[in-house]
Amino acid sequence: MPVRIALDAMGGDLAPAAPVGAARTALLRRTGALEVILVGPAPVVEEALDAAGGPVPGLTVFPSGPGVPEGGHPATWMRAHPDSSVQTAARLAATGEAEAAVSMGHTGACLVAAVWEMGLLPGVVRPAAAVTFAFAPDMVFLDAGPNPDPGPEEIVQFARLGAAYARVQFGVREPTVALLSNGAESGKGNRLARAAHDLLRQSGLRFVGNCEGNDLVRRPADVVVTDGFTGNCVLKAIEGLGEHVVGQLRALLPPSLPGREEVLSGVAALGDATQTGAPVAFLGVDGVFVPGHGRSGADAIAATLLRTEGAVRAGLAPALRRALEPEGTKGATLA
Amino acid sequence: MPVRIALDAMGGDLAPAAPVGAARTALLRRTGALEVILVGPAPVVEEALDAAGGPVPGLTVFPSGPGVPEGGHPATWMRAHPDSSVQTAARLAATGEAEAAVSMGHTGACLVAAVWEMGLLPGVVRPAAAVTFAFAPDMVFLDAGPNPDPGPEEIVQFARLGAAYARVQFGVREPTVALLSNGAESGKGNRLARAAHDLLRQSGLRFVGNCEGNDLVRRPADVVVTDGFTGNCVLKAIEGLGEHVVGQLRALLPPSLPGREEVLSGVAALGDATQTGAPVAFLGVDGVFVPGHGRSGADAIAATLLRTEGAVRAGLAPALRRALEPEGTKGATLA
Repeated sequence: MPVRIALDAMGGDLAPAAPVGAARTALLRRTGALEVILVGPAPVVEEALDAAGGPVPGLTVFPSGPGVPEGGHPATWMRAHPDSSVQTAARLAATGEAEAAVSMGHTGACLVAAVWEMGLLPGVVRPAAAVTFAFAPDMVFLDAGPNPDPGPEEIVQFARLGAAYARVQFGVREPTVALLSNGAESGKGNRLARAAHDLLRQSGLRFVGNCEGNDLVRRPADVVVTDGFTGNCVLKAIEGLGEHVVGQLRALLPPSLPGREEVLSGVAALGDATQTGAPVAFLGVDGVFVPGHGRSGADAIAATLLRTEGAVRAGLAPALRRALEPEGTKGATLA
Repeated sequence: MPVRIALDAMGGDLAPAAPVGAARTALLRRTGALEVILVGPAPVVEEALDAAGGPVPGLTVFPSGPGVPEGGHPATWMRAHPDSSVQTAARLAATGEAEAAVSMGHTGACLVAAVWEMGLLPGVVRPAAAVTFAFAPDMVFLDAGPNPDPGPEEIVQFARLGAAYARVQFGVREPTVALLSNGAESGKGNRLARAAHDLLRQSGLRFVGNCEGNDLVRRPADVVVTDGFTGNCVLKAIEGLGEHVVGQLRALLPPSLPGREEVLSGVAALGDATQTGAPVAFLGVDGVFVPGHGRSGADAIAATLLRTEGAVRAGLAPALRRALEPEGTKGATLA
């Protein structure tokens, strides 16, 4: 059975060209295994499709309203425009017309669309944004923002959901979990981290203890959890330093250096927000919604579509649902 | 009048050779303007001094007990050994035999020594660790660790102390202050950051609003404040990425590249803990205690001595004292 993905054709800085081009690329590579539903105002999407080379097998267009505009409070705008492309894509995934929704649009708008259309898993107050880093692409780091003030129980919830994600997306049987803190010793942390540490030890998860900020590049575990405030500050600091280093290198490396651009782009990837720190999933919604960075080009979006196809095929949605059922979790951890 | 600095001769990975060598270097550059009191067990310090080339004008040795050993809980050990080199150095600065104490020893031990011997400024619960980054050497970032759970009033206190430090150490007349948060808008933040934001707006300080993690490399203000948990995670993440990038570059840059080592060391400095993220001052103690990174070599320690001489000469201790007096602060801000 092909996996059907609803792709927000209007999401991201390079829409509709990049999502439309990405859909064609992904479909040409996975003919028969993948179907992509391009969601957006039909004339706009069809024009972009013509410009990109026309329809390919497995591609359909689902008409919707426009993309959510930049700036302002997305939820306010979306309440008045429930037919926006991102919300329509989420709706298709929620009603079963697709198995997943993908959007490179504004992260806040994506989060609202995912929550409104897919709903939350039992016990979840607000989904967590899971991100990966270019220096550790198979390590899940969460929460990257939506939960600046979680309780310790929610940090454990992030850990359960992150572990389920790592199992399905990266094929790790018993993912390890670390807690970001200001010291490796178990007594270190702010009140929240210390309480979360204690709960994680009793969680049945494979908790390996605290890690510090400088441990992240050493990939301390399959899953690293923290609150959304610290997580956001840390990943943006990494993004900023990465971009800064590339600027420095550009000045330092002689223009004649063979492979100069490769060196620069290799280093750039470490801090580039399209490859590092952009959310790869909202964990806590009942379904698969894959957000991405607004700057993503067609190649990055095509890679996201293929990654999402893999996750759906491996059973991400049921795995996330099971992760928050105490017995299901235990079974999955021991599996 | 020469500035007298008590230097912990036993602090740091390279002690006593590095502190002793640094004292000689600094004194040879600042003869008549600087005096350095080397604090440590006399035979050990004198042997290191002989090995380094012997006494120079302005150098004296003050005998003490040993350095605080690595590992364990420094305060416990120090309670039983009140004559440790770091605590003795702090005591000399507290009793007026020196104007400042400098140590590259364990940060926790330095903090304990500074608090026990110098005491706290009025209203301070625990000093904040102020750090600088190699990419913005004249920006003060605090707290880097000692206060994982401050209240919003303490964040304002950090801002006042940081501003006083920037005025004296960097000669900025009206230092700007930014608050690290997970979004630039004033409503963004966790509960603590939102409350601190409101208090900072009413503080009389030159508050420029929130900055995000990726803004740090753009030096958003003279002073950036955050809680010690977030601050510690962020600066260690920067340190880790910096070291990781250098490792990557070492592999990517051809060995034959002219200036290869300069490129590597330029980039290394951005994340190197001896130049980035090591505390430059404990703000909140009643006096001048300058800690540094344990890996510091003689050059880094000599630079610290000269920087400390400048800070003392510019009146750091009274400026910090004034910073927490409401009227004094206002006067200083408008000065």
